[in-house]
Amino acid sequence: MNFLEERILRDGVVAPGNILKVDSFLNHQMDIALLRQMGQEFHRRFADRPITKVLTIETSGIAIAYPVAEAFGVPLVYARKNHSVNLEGEVYTAEVTGNHGEIVVAQKFLSPEDRVLIVDDILAGGYTLQGLISLVEAADATVEGICIAIEKAFAEGGKRMRNLGYHLESLAVIASMDAVSGHITFA
Amino acid sequence: MNFLEERILRDGVVAPGNILKVDSFLNHQMDIALLRQMGQEFHRRFADRPITKVLTIETSGIAIAYPVAEAFGVPLVYARKNHSVNLEGEVYTAEVTGNHGEIVVAQKFLSPEDRVLIVDDILAGGYTLQGLISLVEAADATVEGICIAIEKAFAEGGKRMRNLGYHLESLAVIASMDAVSGHITFA
Repeated sequence: MNFLEERILRDGVVAPGNILKVDSFLNHQMDIALLRQMGQEFHRRFADRPITKVLTIETSGIAIAYPVAEAFGVPLVYARKNHSVNLEGEVYTAEVTGNHGEIVVAQKFLSPEDRVLIVDDILAGGYTLQGLISLVEAADATVEGICIAIEKAFAEGGKRMRNLGYHLESLAVIASMDAVSGHITFA
Repeated sequence: MNFLEERILRDGVVAPGNILKVDSFLNHQMDIALLRQMGQEFHRRFADRPITKVLTIETSGIAIAYPVAEAFGVPLVYARKNHSVNLEGEVYTAEVTGNHGEIVVAQKFLSPEDRVLIVDDILAGGYTLQGLISLVEAADATVEGICIAIEKAFAEGGKRMRNLGYHLESLAVIASMDAVSGHITFA
């Protein structure tokens, strides 16, 4: 069990509907030392890749992606959900099944030469992630890899991404959760 | 002229309506080395204060606040705008005049012992900042200081906060902007 899985067991809370609440250390309130350690671990796993940009999505992806971008010494770009958009100029747009609707990124921040590392906090069905991949591909840029803090393996979004050939690294992979007992099993 | 003011002159764009676009280095795309330098400067200015928590607001405050929280070695908490709220349990709520409507923070992340440093990217009329102060005061916690990346002095929100006795530090204070010439004057 790694440091993030240990922290999830200690401070995560399982809620009905396969929801894992990590708001005391990963979103809403954030433990910066933990995020730093996560960033270093993601960097280690993709250290041989020629990353030029880190891409995430507002809101809870930003603090996960920050130390990754810092470790690689590259800019951090976050895609915006459409409700918050106040972007001028040309944008790339992707549809996301589920809550988010459209996500957008300004075209000037993704170019064909970019080798992009995508970062997000939680991967379940993978719909947001598919949207982020679509933004990168719309720019003719390259997805070098995907960094996920917590993957819900039972939702199979990660499996689908790996089947598509993407190099996806998740720090904590949850096989199952039980809201009654609070029990979490890692893959 | 300091490093942030120099960067604003180089890469900022003045748009009609006293809007300063800093989306190439401070929001949307973020220059992590610049953010790190800003965080160190904020830390220097409040180094003698017993900060226990950094508070900001989604979305664009998070990457500004991250290196500040790291420099102080304290947790980072971000208030949420009401449209994105999926919080259980008790929350503190504040009204924000203008766009945002309500902002909220979970009560468990602010306590009376907390000495809070508030961080945000841009200060104009100060309505969001007033909301953040209200959240801290609702928790009977103490506002130790306020860190702002860019203050629009002509909008007078900063003046009002200082008149109320808050220790507010802005890295770049804009006296005036002209959208036709693109000229920016710092205070």
